[in-house]
Parts: sequence; C-alpha cells; structure tokens
Amino acid sequence: MADDDEGDIRAMALAFARERIAPHALDWDRDKHFPVDVIRASAALGMAGLYVAEDVGGSGLTRLQAAVVFEALAQGCPTVAAFISIHNMCAWMIDTFGDSDQRRRWLPMLCRMDRLASYCLTEPGSGSDAAALRTRAVRDGDHYVLDGQKQFISGAGNPDDFYVVMARTGGEGPSGISAIVVEGGTPGLSFGADERKMGWNAQPTRAVMFENCRVPVSNRLGPEGEGFRYAMRGLDGGRLNIAACSLGGAQAAFDKALAYMAERQTFGKRLDAYQALQFRLADMATDLEASRALLHRAARALDVGAPDATRLCAMAKRFVTDAGSRVADEALQLHGGYGYLSDYGVEKIVRDLRVHRILEGTNEIMRMIVARSILAER
Amino acid sequence: MADDDEGDIRAMALAFARERIAPHALDWDRDKHFPVDVIRASAALGMAGLYVAEDVGGSGLTRLQAAVVFEALAQGCPTVAAFISIHNMCAWMIDTFGDSDQRRRWLPMLCRMDRLASYCLTEPGSGSDAAALRTRAVRDGDHYVLDGQKQFISGAGNPDDFYVVMARTGGEGPSGISAIVVEGGTPGLSFGADERKMGWNAQPTRAVMFENCRVPVSNRLGPEGEGFRYAMRGLDGGRLNIAACSLGGAQAAFDKALAYMAERQTFGKRLDAYQALQFRLADMATDLEASRALLHRAARALDVGAPDATRLCAMAKRFVTDAGSRVADEALQLHGGYGYLSDYGVEKIVRDLRVHRILEGTNEIMRMIVARSILAER
Amino acid sequence: MADDDEGDIRAMALAFARERIAPHALDWDRDKHFPVDVIRASAALGMAGLYVAEDVGGSGLTRLQAAVVFEALAQGCPTVAAFISIHNMCAWMIDTFGDSDQRRRWLPMLCRMDRLASYCLTEPGSGSDAAALRTRAVRDGDHYVLDGQKQFISGAGNPDDFYVVMARTGGEGPSGISAIVVEGGTPGLSFGADERKMGWNAQPTRAVMFENCRVPVSNRLGPEGEGFRYAMRGLDGGRLNIAACSLGGAQAAFDKALAYMAERQTFGKRLDAYQALQFRLADMATDLEASRALLHRAARALDVGAPDATRLCAMAKRFVTDAGSRVADEALQLHGGYGYLSDYGVEKIVRDLRVHRILEGTNEIMRMIVARSILAER
Amino acid sequence: MADDDEGDIRAMALAFARERIAPHALDWDRDKHFPVDVIRASAALGMAGLYVAEDVGGSGLTRLQAAVVFEALAQGCPTVAAFISIHNMCAWMIDTFGDSDQRRRWLPMLCRMDRLASYCLTEPGSGSDAAALRTRAVRDGDHYVLDGQKQFISGAGNPDDFYVVMARTGGEGPSGISAIVVEGGTPGLSFGADERKMGWNAQPTRAVMFENCRVPVSNRLGPEGEGFRYAMRGLDGGRLNIAACSLGGAQAAFDKALAYMAERQTFGKRLDAYQALQFRLADMATDLEASRALLHRAARALDVGAPDATRLCAMAKRFVTDAGSRVADEALQLHGGYGYLSDYGVEKIVRDLRVHRILEGTNEIMRMIVARSILAER
Repeated sequence: MADDDEGDIRAMALAFARERIAPHALDWDRDKHFPVDVIRASAALGMAGLYVAEDVGGSGLTRLQAAVVFEALAQGCPTVAAFISIHNMCAWMIDTFGDSDQRRRWLPMLCRMDRLASYCLTEPGSGSDAAALRTRAVRDGDHYVLDGQKQFISGAGNPDDFYVVMARTGGEGPSGISAIVVEGGTPGLSFGADERKMGWNAQPTRAVMFENCRVPVSNRLGPEGEGFRYAMRGLDGGRLNIAACSLGGAQAAFDKALAYMAERQTFGKRLDAYQALQFRLADMATDLEASRALLHRAARALDVGAPDATRLCAMAKRFVTDAGSRVADEALQLHGGYGYLSDYGVEKIVRDLRVHRILEGTNEIMRMIVARSILAER
Repeated sequence: MADDDEGDIRAMALAFARERIAPHALDWDRDKHFPVDVIRASAALGMAGLYVAEDVGGSGLTRLQAAVVFEALAQGCPTVAAFISIHNMCAWMIDTFGDSDQRRRWLPMLCRMDRLASYCLTEPGSGSDAAALRTRAVRDGDHYVLDGQKQFISGAGNPDDFYVVMARTGGEGPSGISAIVVEGGTPGLSFGADERKMGWNAQPTRAVMFENCRVPVSNRLGPEGEGFRYAMRGLDGGRLNIAACSLGGAQAAFDKALAYMAERQTFGKRLDAYQALQFRLADMATDLEASRALLHRAARALDVGAPDATRLCAMAKRFVTDAGSRVADEALQLHGGYGYLSDYGVEKIVRDLRVHRILEGTNEIMRMIVARSILAER
Repeated sequence: MADDDEGDIRAMALAFARERIAPHALDWDRDKHFPVDVIRASAALGMAGLYVAEDVGGSGLTRLQAAVVFEALAQGCPTVAAFISIHNMCAWMIDTFGDSDQRRRWLPMLCRMDRLASYCLTEPGSGSDAAALRTRAVRDGDHYVLDGQKQFISGAGNPDDFYVVMARTGGEGPSGISAIVVEGGTPGLSFGADERKMGWNAQPTRAVMFENCRVPVSNRLGPEGEGFRYAMRGLDGGRLNIAACSLGGAQAAFDKALAYMAERQTFGKRLDAYQALQFRLADMATDLEASRALLHRAARALDVGAPDATRLCAMAKRFVTDAGSRVADEALQLHGGYGYLSDYGVEKIVRDLRVHRILEGTNEIMRMIVARSILAER
Repeated sequence: MADDDEGDIRAMALAFARERIAPHALDWDRDKHFPVDVIRASAALGMAGLYVAEDVGGSGLTRLQAAVVFEALAQGCPTVAAFISIHNMCAWMIDTFGDSDQRRRWLPMLCRMDRLASYCLTEPGSGSDAAALRTRAVRDGDHYVLDGQKQFISGAGNPDDFYVVMARTGGEGPSGISAIVVEGGTPGLSFGADERKMGWNAQPTRAVMFENCRVPVSNRLGPEGEGFRYAMRGLDGGRLNIAACSLGGAQAAFDKALAYMAERQTFGKRLDAYQALQFRLADMATDLEASRALLHRAARALDVGAPDATRLCAMAKRFVTDAGSRVADEALQLHGGYGYLSDYGVEKIVRDLRVHRILEGTNEIMRMIVARSILAER
C-alpha cells in the first residue's frame, strides 16, 4: 500500500468494506460481536498502521489518505472502522514517541494486528477534564505499579491486547502524566463488564482496572510527564479519524436513502420525484461534501504540521460528526416507517454515529479548543 | 376521574408513571417486553377510555386533559404511553362512529382493557398514501371476507385483542374504504413476526394478515365508505396524543440531564455552572414550553370542533415531535459518555421518540396537510 | 374598549393597522418619519393605556388582550407598534408603582397621548448589566439633580414628552436605583442625534442626556431603591409586547409571501404549487402558531401573577423574536429578487424585527433568566 | 499578477480592500454611491480580468485564486467585490466564447476597466426559469434588432458600459437564445430607475430596456442558440465568486465581533470571556472554515473541468451564502444594540449578504441543480 494515489486506496478500502464488513454489520450489531478476525484481515491490507513508518510494517501514508480509508471502511460499518482507527492512533503514538527499541518490539505486531491496541485516557471522574485523571503509576525499581480505573475503553477485554495508558507518575495536572504501554495478561490488569449502549455494538466498551499492576519502566513512552501531551497529539489525528467514520456512515445512510427512494412509490410517484424530498437530498449531499472538504483541509494541515492544525482538527471533528448525525437522521426519515426497522440498516448508523459527537473529546470540548485558539491568536 | 381539574389528573398520571412504569422501563426495553398487566392497571384509573363517554365506562375527559395524561405517562415510558394512546384512539372511534349496540358491546371491555385495541391502517404498499390500501373486505351475506395485510401494527399479536381495520369494501380511493372491527381469534387472522426496531421495544410491532377472514357485517362502524374519514378523524386526536408522548419523553430526558448536571463535576465545577450548557438548558426548556403551549392550543381546538383543528393537530404533531427529539438528543449530549450507556435511560428516550416523527402520518405528511389547508383557506 | 372579546379587539386593531399605518409604513421607513399624529390617533381607540386602570383613562385590558393588540398593530408596522408598546409599558409603571397623585396627574395625559413616554434604562456602559447604570440623581432639598446619559432611547427627542428614568439615588447595584419621571422641557435635559440604524426608522433612537437636571422629588415612583425592581417588572410585560410585535411583523411577511406566490409563476407553474416551497410555508405557519401559543401562555401567566411568569415572559421573548426573524427572512427569500427591493415591503420587516432579538434584554439575557430560574427552582 | 502564490495574491487584495475600499464602504452604502474610480483602480492590479487570458490583458489566474481575491475584496465591501466579480464573469465569457476579433477588440478595454460590463439575463417575468426570457433579437441584415427588458441588472446605467445580453434569436426554450454584446450608447438602449433595496447600495440595480436597439451581428458570441449555455457556464464561476463575496463579508463581520468583544465589558467581564459567547465564536469560525474549504474544493473542480464541477459550484453557492448570512447575523447579535447602528458596519454586511442567497440563481435553484445531478448520476 505504498501507492499514494487516493483513488486506489479508497477503492481498496471500499472493496474491503463492501465484501468483508457490510454484509455482516447488522448481525454484529445485533449480536454485539467484536469481529476480530475481520479487523485482523484489514491489517493484511496495511490498515493497522496506516500512518506508521514503513520500517516497522506501517503503510507510511498521510493523514489525508488515512481519512480517505476510514471514510471508506465506515461505509461498511462505522463501529468497526472506528475501532481500527483507535488501533492506528495507538500505533502512531508508539511510532512517534517510542524509542527505537519500543518501535521494533511492538509495531510489527501491531501493524499485523497480532495484538490490538486500546487507548486508555478517560476515567470515571475525568471525562472532558482528562488531565484530572487519577490512575497512579508509582515507581518501584524497574517497574511502575499501576492502580486505578479507566472508563469507556473501546475494544478492551482481550487478554492479549495492548493498552496505551495515561497514568500519573508525578504531581497534579497534565505535567504529572506519563504514557505507559500495558500488555494484555499483565497481572493486576482486569476488565469491567461490556457496557450496554445505544450503538457501537460491534466493539466492546469496558472499564479497565489496574490493581497493583506491575509494568516495566521500559514500557513508558518518552520521558516522564510527557504523556498528556502525547495523548493530546494522538487525539488530533484521532479526531480526524472519527470524523471520517461519521462521514462514511452518513454517506452510506445517504446512499441507502437514495436507493430506497428510487424504489418506493407513494401517491403514484417515486419518492425521489417529490421536490421537497429532492431539496433534502440536495442539502444532505451538500453537508457531506462540505464535511469532506473541511476534513481533508484539516488532515492536510496535520500532515504539514501547520500551526492551526489542532484547531482545524477540532473544527472538523465538531462539524463533521454533527453533520454526519444530521444526514443519517434525515436518511432514516426518508425511509418512513422502514427506517425505524433494524433490517434496513439506517437506524443502526444513526445509533453508531451518535457517540462520535461525544468521544475523542465531546463536541463541547471541541468548541472550547476552537474558541481558545481564536482568542489566543488575536 | 370525573374531576376536570388538570392538576389532579396530571398528578395521578404522574404517580402511575413514576410508580408502575418508570422503574421497569429500561428492562422492558431491553427484554422487548410488552407490559400488558401494567397497561391494564392504567384502565383501572380511567386511562383506557379517556375521552370515551361515561355511559360505557369511559372517563369523559377532554382532549386537552388526555394530552396532559399522555404527557405524564410518557415521563415513565413513551412507548407504553403511546400504546395506551392508540388503544384510546380506537375506543374513541367506536364511541363516536359506532352504533349504540356496538358501543355497549365493546366499549365496557375496552375501557377496562379486558381487550386491547390496535389500529390497522398502514399496509406494506401504502404508508403516507393511506387511501391506496388494498386489503379487501368482500361482502358475503352477513359477513365480510377480509384478505390482505397490514403493516407496522402497534401492539398486534395478542389473539384476544381488537383490531380496527380499514378495508376496501368499494372502489378505489378513500370513498371505497370501511372501518371494520376484527376480534382476536377470528379464523384467518394471523400475525407476522415482532419486528426488530430502533426503539419502541415495550410494544410489539407486527404485520397483521387476513386470509379469508370472515367478520360479521355488524362489526362495521357506520355506513360503508366512511372508514377513511373515520380513520383520519381518529388521527387528528392520535396526533395530539403522540405529540404528548414526545413531550413527556423529552421532559423526562430534560429532567435527567438537569439532575446529572447537578452531580457531575468537570474542571472543578458542576456541569450546570457552565454558561454554554445553561444556555442549552434554557433553549431546551423553552422548546418544551412552546411545544406544550401549541399542543394544548391544538387540543382545545379539537375539543371545540374548531374549523382549523385538523391543521392545528398536524402543526402540533410536527412541531412537538421534532422538538421532542431535539431536546432528548441534547439531553443525551449533556450526559457525555454516560448518555450513550443504556443504564442512564436517556438514549432509550431518544430511540423511542424517533418514531414519533414518522408514525400517525410522517412529519412530511403533516407539512402537506398544513400547506394544503393554508392554500385552501386563502 | 371595555369589551373583553379578543376577536373584537383584534378586529379594531387590525383595522387601524390596515387603514392608518400600513399604507404609509414604507414611506415612514424611507423618510425616517416618526408618525406622532397616527400614534396619537391610536390613543383615541384606547391603545395608549391598554392595561392601565380605567379610572385614569386606561383601557383596563389584560396582558393577553394587549398582546393581541400589538400583534395586530405590528401587521401594519412593527416599529410603530413597538413604540406604542413602550409608551404602554411606561404608563403601566406609573399606574402600578405611582401614588394616587401621580396617577391622576400623569396618566390621563398619557392615556390620551398628549404626551408620549419613553423608557430610559440603558446606558452606554451598561446594556445587559442594566443594574450597573451610572446616571446619578442626587438629592438636593425637594429635588433630585440628575447627571448622566441614557442610550438607545426609543422615541426620544420630543421636548414635550415623558421620560421614565432609572437613576442611581443610592449605592452600587440594583438596590441603589430609583425610578424618576422627567418631563420634557426640564432644563438640563437634552438629546443626542437620531441614530442611523438598520431599521426601526419610524421612531427615533437617541441618547438622552441629563446635566444638572433638576426634578422634583415628587416625580419619583415609589420609595427610593425600588426603581430597578420596577424596571424589571415593566420589562416582563415589555417582553411580551415586543414579542407580539415580532409576531405581527412576521405574520404580515408571511401573508405577503403567500400573496406573491399565488401570483408569480415560474417554469409554467405558480410558485405556491411547488412542494418544496409549500413545506416552507407549512413550517413558517407552524412557527407562527407555536409563537402565538407560547406568547399567550406567558401573557396569561403574567395576568394571573403566576410564580413562573418572569421565566415564561423571557421564554416567549426569546422564542417569538427568533421565530419572527426566521419567518420574515424566509418570506423575503420566497419573493426571490423582489424580496430584496424596498417596494415590496418584506425587507423592511426583516430589518425592523432584527432589533427585537436585542432590545428589552437581549436574547442572551433571556437565556440567562430562563436558566437561572430553572436551576433555582430545582 | 502572474504570481500564482495564493498568499501574495490574497495579501495584495486584502491591502487594496483595507486601503481603498473599507474606509469608504459605509459612506458609499449611505449615499448609494457606485465607486467607479476605486473599482477601476482594482483593474490596475489585474482584478478586472482575473481569469482572462494574459494575451488580452487578463491575469490568467485560476478560479481558486480568483475566489481568494474576491473573498479578500469583500472584506472591504461585499457589494463592491461582487460588482467586480460580475465584470469578471462577463470578461470571461467573451474570452471563452468570443472569437479572436472580439477578444482583441473588447478584452483589453475590459481588463483595464475602461468600460465596465454587466450581465443581462434576468427579466421581469423570468427569474429562476431564465430560459423563458422574452427579449427578442431579430435579424435584420448585418444587425440584430433588440426589443425587451432586463431586470435586476447590477451596475447598469452607465452609457459607456458593456452589456452581455442573453436574447432570443430563435424559438422557445434555451436553444433559441444567443449571447450578444450591446455597447453603451447604442440607440434604443435605456435604463430604469435605480432600485431602492435592502443593501448592495454601492452598486446600482436597474432595469435595462431595449427598444428597436440595433446591434451588429458581429457582436454575437459564438453561434446562434448557444447563449443560454454560455450564460450557465458563466454562472458556474459566478456562483463561486458570489460565494467568495459572502465569505469575505462574513469574515469581516466575525472580525468586527471579535474586536468588539475584546473591548466591551458587561457584569465586570469582557464579553469574550463568556463561555456561551465563546461557543458561538467557535461555531462561526467553523462555519467560515467549512465554507472556505467547500468553496476551494468547487473552484479546483471548475479549474480542472471536473464532471461534477457544476454541482459543486451550486453546492458551494448554497452552502457558503447561507453560512455567510448566518455568521454575519450572529456577529450583529454579539454587538448587542450597537450591532443595529449603521456606524458599526456589521448591519450593512448583513444587508449586503442577504441578496447573495437570491442572485446568480436562488438557493432554491441551487438545490434543484444539486438534486437533479444526484438523481441523474445514480
């Protein structure tokens, strides 16, 4: 997947979404099945380390290309795409902030998805104010001893997996936080029950608990106290990815509505012949296109390290995830009563996309980031 | 329940919602359980024939009072409240369009909810264009022989229940349709599978099939050819009721958000101390109050038989169900990640209310009714 | 005008608007003409003291009836209607908080509109934070000596008129403020230039300056320190009125659009035959009806002194003025290019209504009032 | 201006806007002054033929670069920028569809703005349905004789100027229309009164009348019957330009609000310290950025002749002009009462941008274009 032609990459990802994901997405949702095998298959196509360097098995793509991939995957299932995007974010953190030993030790495994990686930042008492986290990592010789609890951890629960954990190695506030990799199977690492939730059923969401959990100091990324900064850097890209997943989901919902309206008749006319509904289609399509344009703009900014990249990523996350939910909701409405039935697949997209406005920083936090940046710049 | 004091009626309905419905609503949703026993208990309080005349066991209330009741019940669970409202709509049709024999034969049973009633209008091929229905009722001596299929029938499936069926006894169009009561257990009456759907899990939604189903001619309400008109008259009130159910659900979601925000802290402050979130609360509360005011205005118009009652009912249905979904969605957002978890109950409200914008005439049909009325009046 | 039949009152006000106001509204806007003669003519119909007691020449109507009147007048011109409403607010303050001597001395004149009254609260440095006003009224024997400047005073400039001035007689904060009537012609009272503004051209907006302006102590309403409370009480009703003026303006814009669309053809069809435009008409009409319902609900609450009256008035002001601007803007759009031309009158309505979202407390202040009330109640 | 560095071009256009346009924009609006001298000065910087070929004096820029220029100019005054954009559209039509003689004869003059050009398509009876135009151009030897009337013609009235007129040389419908250049001073060419309108006061809007107006056949662009196609091709770019003018106007309004909020205090805090207002700033900035991203995406598509260019131009026009009005309206609101005063300049922007949602094809027509394209593609 060294080819940097966006079109080829999109085509490949769309084919994977169409063949391997979409046909099963409704079942996975109903059964709350985490399709690890299919997710692993995406790694064979280079999707496990999309913007990880090639020397350790990554694909070396840009963020823009990654956004194209996640949009395409999400057309099959936003939840599966989103999990793959979280794995990518973790791999990128190791690639960027890890030392060469850590990179060689972990990234080939992650780029093949022998192990899946989860991102552990949020805690029960610290959501939006992530820097208030209380999980402690106390130094004891060559190890850290972790105690605490993480919340809403996507993909958590597999004893073989990797957990990139933000924990407090120092004092209060962001500068007391370090990023530490905890491998599945480490004693003292355990998991809460799979949460029942509105959607995102194709990936588990669990609490992750650390109780006297000993991790080698060599699992720490970079120096002590840098973890929060790394976590935030990771989220810039993570926000692009989650926005891309909203976009792909909304595009799929739009396509379903378009197809349905060509078939369904009422009052002797096809639904898509009604002007009021055509205007809605136009607005939905325009929202999708504006979303795509803003997302790609933000991704290019992150690719070149533009000074306003964080702001643009926050803008894109807010705008695209809001637009995505709106478009999917309209697509449901255009299906009439059938839109409410699970079999038509559009209500699932509405449920899945709903959480994108909350995670990776709520859309309220996005507004705070954007406003702060505007006021600081002045 | 002859007392026409709105406050008393509301208090009673709220108490029932709080004690009998709310504590179980999440379980019923999860288990797709239709709580017939609790629904029957509402009949003992007069809620099965709210605006049915008192001589046959009804409560003789106004539509305005009924709207107050449904809003209150929906604060416990919109789905349960909505089913009770459909039962009421059917009972009202019999009370209004049935002859004295039909009234005496059926309404006492319905007002006690010995039997539940379902409204059977929609068909697989006729949703918004309801008058295109194709279920036939062919006269054969003292019977009609029904053949056809109804779709999206709420509460359907119980062999003991009542089905108020709009069927074609004459030619094409609305004037060929009659309203016929089919009692559960009639040979040739059968039911489809319970549909999997986004919400409204506390009541089954099934197809209802008629195959050579013989029903006495004396089960027809009013003369032949009046059924479509009756069905539409029923829907005027049905739209008020469904709007009231949206309002109650949204109010409950708002109350949950308010309570959550008083408890939850971030960045060292309670959530409800953040101005941007306070502004949202203000807008949500204003939307609720505007919804209530318009709903009550429409209900009073229907109560006095105002010439613009149909238009006002359509306006109220469109406005209140849209506002209800918006408020519930905001309430979810204000919960952050917890809003997405089933245990907090707010995502269930979002899912339940979603269908209110579709059923009893989609909100697009409401716009057609309103526009047509405006243009005709000019 | 003792008849409390809303229909009669509305009919009379509509007739006045149609005959005396509407034919000249565009000229007054263009010429920035303050039509004092026509405004005075409204007094002959009882509109200068709508909810002032009858013993001093008022009409003794309810707030609900007054809202009906202002909506009707605003169909002729929102600006003229709004000025009349401000005069009424001032008269009501004197009626309610004045002693019997003040009532007898001033109200007959005001109810005949021999004098017009302006409400002087806002200052250059205190808009939303009205209680920070700095105009001082220093006691000197039987007089107050006023020094300071008021801003954005509607109708100001006529040397014969009345100014109900909130001035600081004591310390900082709301409890240091008193309400004092300053009669036109008092030495030391002067006026700034008529401001150039977006709309509201049929009434002047000026600064009002006090420089060593001596006013008898007997011109103070109620005891010292009550002025801010009176001003706020006045605004509760003022907000209803301004909302009613938005509603009337929006209704007129809607009616213009409806008429235009019946005449204008495009692609061989009348504009009002296009479904997408019909849907807009439906939404506009629904917004108008919801606005009216909420406004009347708030007016009834104020009429009976309900504990939540202030909150409801703030809700109504926010909701109705926002909806009014939205409907008027849509009406302009439905006129196509003609909507942008002054001759068609709809762009004037858009300009006039724009300020209603700002004055009598901005819509942001309304949100603060509503939120505070919700949180306090909890 | 051959330098294709966007940054340089933007800087030059911003400097021109800041120095030559902005200081006078409020006066021009108030005085309804068409600043031909300043507009001509823009030609000296290459802005009269931005995307006209260089051999005839054009600047040879891309559409994307032109969009950057118009956004920058509109930060000084959207109306002046918009007139320059219309001139550019006409020049481009001659460059693209004219023969080499026409190009050499007219374009140097137009690129120096010795003459200004106006685009004459709309008629009193044909707005959205432009192809229904009735102005006739009847062949008489080497001349066409034009009879008819154009409406809403921007910049019209100067006897020296150029009018690119779409007139009917053949039968009904689009294929009967030709594009003919009518030079100012031609006998039979006359102008209506300057229309009074909501904004866009810095350019006249007049009817253009043809009465037995003889124009050489050599003034026709391309073959007979191609005029409508040319006009529509011109509008693709024209829509980008008008969107860019909305964007620049909205950006200026946003900047004004930001500056105002840094200075203005209420309740003892700067306005920009209020979270609820910060959230609005964030949403406004995000809307601006999404608008810019979509606009540039559409411009690139037009530059490369992408098959979906017309659709993207229509999307950009609809989205950006709607967002621009919304942002400007919010900026006004953030100014409180001062926003309503002419001196602060923000209400002028609101008035100017309002017409952008109507002209160059109403936003309703944009939705029709987008919907038709989506349905055709399927």
